Amino acid sequence: MKQYQILDGIQNPKDLKALSYSELSLLSDEVRDFLITHVSETGGHLASNLGTVELTLALHRVFDCPKDSIVWDVGHQSYTHKMVTGRKERFSTLRKANGLSGFPRPSESVYDAFLAGHSSTSISAAYAISCANRLSHNDAYAVAVIGDGAFTGGMAYEAMNNAGRSRNQLIIVLNHNDMSITKNVGAFARYLSVIRAKPGYLKLKDHVEWLLDHFPFFGKRIKKALRSSKSMLKYLLYHATFFEEMGFAYFGPVDGHNQKALEQVLLRAKELRAPAVIQIETIKGKGYPFAEKDPLNYHGVSPFDVETGNGAVSSSLTFSDVFGSCLLDLGRTDSKICAITAAMSAGTGLNLFAASYEDRFFDVGIAEEHAVTFACGLASKGYLPVFAVYSTFLQRAYDQVLHDAACSGLHILLAVDRAGIVGGDGETHQGIYDVSFLTGIPNVTIFSPSTEEELRLCLKEGLYRCTGVVAVRYPKGRVFRLAGGKTQTNYDLQNGEEDCLVISYGRLFHSVYSAVCGLNRKPSLLKLVQIWPLKEELIALISRYPKVIVFEEAVQSGSISEHLLYALNQAGYRGDYQSVTLPDTFMEQGDVSYLLQKYHLDVDSIQKQLEDLYEKETGCSC
Amino acid sequence: MKQYQILDGIQNPKDLKALSYSELSLLSDEVRDFLITHVSETGGHLASNLGTVELTLALHRVFDCPKDSIVWDVGHQSYTHKMVTGRKERFSTLRKANGLSGFPRPSESVYDAFLAGHSSTSISAAYAISCANRLSHNDAYAVAVIGDGAFTGGMAYEAMNNAGRSRNQLIIVLNHNDMSITKNVGAFARYLSVIRAKPGYLKLKDHVEWLLDHFPFFGKRIKKALRSSKSMLKYLLYHATFFEEMGFAYFGPVDGHNQKALEQVLLRAKELRAPAVIQIETIKGKGYPFAEKDPLNYHGVSPFDVETGNGAVSSSLTFSDVFGSCLLDLGRTDSKICAITAAMSAGTGLNLFAASYEDRFFDVGIAEEHAVTFACGLASKGYLPVFAVYSTFLQRAYDQVLHDAACSGLHILLAVDRAGIVGGDGETHQGIYDVSFLTGIPNVTIFSPSTEEELRLCLKEGLYRCTGVVAVRYPKGRVFRLAGGKTQTNYDLQNGEEDCLVISYGRLFHSVYSAVCGLNRKPSLLKLVQIWPLKEELIALISRYPKVIVFEEAVQSGSISEHLLYALNQAGYRGDYQSVTLPDTFMEQGDVSYLLQKYHLDVDSIQKQLEDLYEKETGCSC
Repeated sequence: MKQYQILDGIQNPKDLKALSYSELSLLSDEVRDFLITHVSETGGHLASNLGTVELTLALHRVFDCPKDSIVWDVGHQSYTHKMVTGRKERFSTLRKANGLSGFPRPSESVYDAFLAGHSSTSISAAYAISCANRLSHNDAYAVAVIGDGAFTGGMAYEAMNNAGRSRNQLIIVLNHNDMSITKNVGAFARYLSVIRAKPGYLKLKDHVEWLLDHFPFFGKRIKKALRSSKSMLKYLLYHATFFEEMGFAYFGPVDGHNQKALEQVLLRAKELRAPAVIQIETIKGKGYPFAEKDPLNYHGVSPFDVETGNGAVSSSLTFSDVFGSCLLDLGRTDSKICAITAAMSAGTGLNLFAASYEDRFFDVGIAEEHAVTFACGLASKGYLPVFAVYSTFLQRAYDQVLHDAACSGLHILLAVDRAGIVGGDGETHQGIYDVSFLTGIPNVTIFSPSTEEELRLCLKEGLYRCTGVVAVRYPKGRVFRLAGGKTQTNYDLQNGEEDCLVISYGRLFHSVYSAVCGLNRKPSLLKLVQIWPLKEELIALISRYPKVIVFEEAVQSGSISEHLLYALNQAGYRGDYQSVTLPDTFMEQGDVSYLLQKYHLDVDSIQKQLEDLYEKETGCSC
Repeated sequence: MKQYQILDGIQNPKDLKALSYSELSLLSDEVRDFLITHVSETGGHLASNLGTVELTLALHRVFDCPKDSIVWDVGHQSYTHKMVTGRKERFSTLRKANGLSGFPRPSESVYDAFLAGHSSTSISAAYAISCANRLSHNDAYAVAVIGDGAFTGGMAYEAMNNAGRSRNQLIIVLNHNDMSITKNVGAFARYLSVIRAKPGYLKLKDHVEWLLDHFPFFGKRIKKALRSSKSMLKYLLYHATFFEEMGFAYFGPVDGHNQKALEQVLLRAKELRAPAVIQIETIKGKGYPFAEKDPLNYHGVSPFDVETGNGAVSSSLTFSDVFGSCLLDLGRTDSKICAITAAMSAGTGLNLFAASYEDRFFDVGIAEEHAVTFACGLASKGYLPVFAVYSTFLQRAYDQVLHDAACSGLHILLAVDRAGIVGGDGETHQGIYDVSFLTGIPNVTIFSPSTEEELRLCLKEGLYRCTGVVAVRYPKGRVFRLAGGKTQTNYDLQNGEEDCLVISYGRLFHSVYSAVCGLNRKPSLLKLVQIWPLKEELIALISRYPKVIVFEEAVQSGSISEHLLYALNQAGYRGDYQSVTLPDTFMEQGDVSYLLQKYHLDVDSIQKQLEDLYEKETGCSC
């Protein structure tokens, strides 16, 4: 283990307060070295953490955590915070099963004020904490740290609108790096860039004040103008920015890598004892040239070589890649197809489409709700909108899918990426709820292809042979190719023994197929591809088997397993029905294979359960 | 039927274009008379419609619908629009089964560009329509009409942020009446009021421009200041409002009851051929003194007497009343209890709490997402937040309930009002999905009390004896008192014949109880009060009955009926299980009693189904 002169002496934030600025400068270097060393081994979020080293140190020197609360938005920039709050020794376990979370977790440390993972929640939480402090006559501060990307989410605005009225001790640090995960978009981002580029804009306030002091005897018209608008002029002077209009004091822009300047502005805001916004300017990836040059690719990384910056070369084709290339193909022949992303064009594979059909590509910012209703507006005029979104982030748009899309009967396609267990990002990012919440919305058709070719077919089927809301869901990571059976968009039955039917879909089908291949006896095997709604024909087919067992990578409540049992029962089925789903809990971080095993959905567990099923039968017939 | 000189001649918007301003003035009077006459008979939204008469006429004179699209936000202000687009004759059917919807419905008319009901969606939809127009080389306009209340919703901001970059023909009419359903709150509302109160603020731009033109030879310091900040000064001049900072041209404020001024400003914005915001000032309830004086109580009304303004006096105590008084009581003894509303303090019964415990009452604006995360922030500091919200609007906060509340294990109470069928508001407002989406979220406890007393007990139980997220759901309208059985917070079993168990919960339990009372044979009757999670003890109890039938006022997919069957099956139950739920569709408008009958959940239908169940049995045993 590397030795660090300053860093190794930091056990908790109090230790930071005694340091000189030259020691802090050395500490920042050490922190960056630590981050690069560890993240290159474990993988994780890199660029965002390299950008917030000085900020984190400044926050912990100016404020007293855990009495004061720091709420990290999204939370992927909280590694330095974790290091200086007693968790440095655990970094080799980052994002691993039973290891350190990559996001703030109150269950992990009292220094983590609020759980994070999804974007744009920090101001709501920090404002509430400031209200609680006020009610409790607690002289503590609440600080939200939010990037300009997260600021495109509507929740940030809802919270600003609400908090601006208060006189609470609330400080919002707006970390402007002109970057969410991809290059930030929208009017607000442009506005921040204007402020950054021209600090003179803010100095104008001072100039106008000076003008009024020194030239009181203007001509008649000007005097009249100034007299009649005096209060308005005042208003203008003190409401020069969006933030001031929302009722916040505004400080900035400040160089986010200048330790002393950061601490000074935090102290000024602290002295105010009222809501304040501090705009800081940082460089994502700061201190690691590869990451500075390409912050997008160093946002979330797999293990890589520190010297060369190269990750383990992966030539695996992913489901996202296939989706991206398929949509590119479809977009070429059909000018009605539009692609929408909520700041995730690279992750979802939409980069290709964006480059080729710029006018039909819409990056709406981190704004999933708007994205869905925007898609509906396009559909209402005859376009074919495809919104590519991670399963976990689609949760944000539940109401829009229900109210704006499904209730209207508008035809939109949701490309639901990262469906199922996602791994290291853990409990806040699992894609295991979409089956439940999408099947609870009327008029939604859901496909869960299990191979590359099925994904392509399902996209076409969904776009051209379905109506209403269509969701095509697929997992993170490399594609699977057809192992057995046929490529379908509906279902595929592989006949085996007629007494038992094994059912699965999506990624898990491959494990089920392998398990069945390993059995001495061969049950019949049904792969669902269109998993919802369950058609009568399918129910009739399944009803013929006295034993039915379903394996499903989704939470139980609202699962296909539940809906299918209900439909079978309604159809008079009285056979033996079993199913194995994920439990109704929040699922921890860990490798996908580890978690599947833990929840009895790996090949061995499935095989064992199938063997037990046959054994039980033999037992009965004895 | 009343005769109207001008109005009767208006068959479609084209007929408006030939009218003189004096004829339009008469028409406005006639429209208001028509609205007051009809809404006093049918009930419906009144104040919002009286406020937008001139605006609607102006929009239809300046634009050409349906080529141009008008997107009404929320849509409860669209009555005049419906009248002048050929639907005047159907107003006696307003909000009734098979009648005219109280909201824009594209299925009802080509003039309704987009379905509405929930707040803050209009800018997303209108911007998308403007994008579609641009892609299609269609020279049409898209106009969103949105109130300042709806503007507190984050979606409006997300859409503004996205749309401000474009050069589309998009016009946003911001209808400022300082009122959502209750008095509007937040920094943004205050900002609009400043603009309204001081039009001189906007004139300052002109003054400063004049100043620069006429005094080019200021002293050294000023010259330097102006030189260095010249582009910023320009920026300041042309970005005087929030809207201009977001990339929109800004017009206003304009008197929204001045027909000519409205049309002029709409024409100016139209000529711009780029995104524009027009702020208009209107009076809710305009032209009907009772409504002008008390727009809150004339927002949504039951039939009333036009002369006196009095509605049919209803002394019925509602579930919302009981909730409100119970929370007031609890708040008196427990200073940790906080109440949160998303602009619905009157509807949810929180007015009493708000008046008594102002510092612990939070109206966050129409911002359900922020509301839930805000509640979580309070809970993280040991407070007991209660968010009172209509079932249909809670849909907006699905992700926040899952990610910020349940995943954190934070203890918050959701008081879910208007659960179940709601009646006249129709398909966009039904509270029939919450059971499905809340049971799909881990760590949520759901109570569905069926009486006044049970509601009180459940609130206490939920606050003090539960952990995590607790939802207490109850229907719109008058309370029920205990008809039979016992008041419980868990479940109540009324023993009858041991071969059959009838299960229900909530409002529907009373119908089931009545039906059972009307039977010759008496099955056992189980009332669920805590409907989720289903405890083992309950499953064991239910398993004892060879026949089980559930009646449930919720959509099937994700219903308690489904979860219960699954749990029974897992426990080895092989009896006869039936259930009657609402179908997985969007439910149309109509009286609650009419809809319950249509979906076989009225007393007679339930009784018949129970009789059939016994008959089937007799049939079998023959």
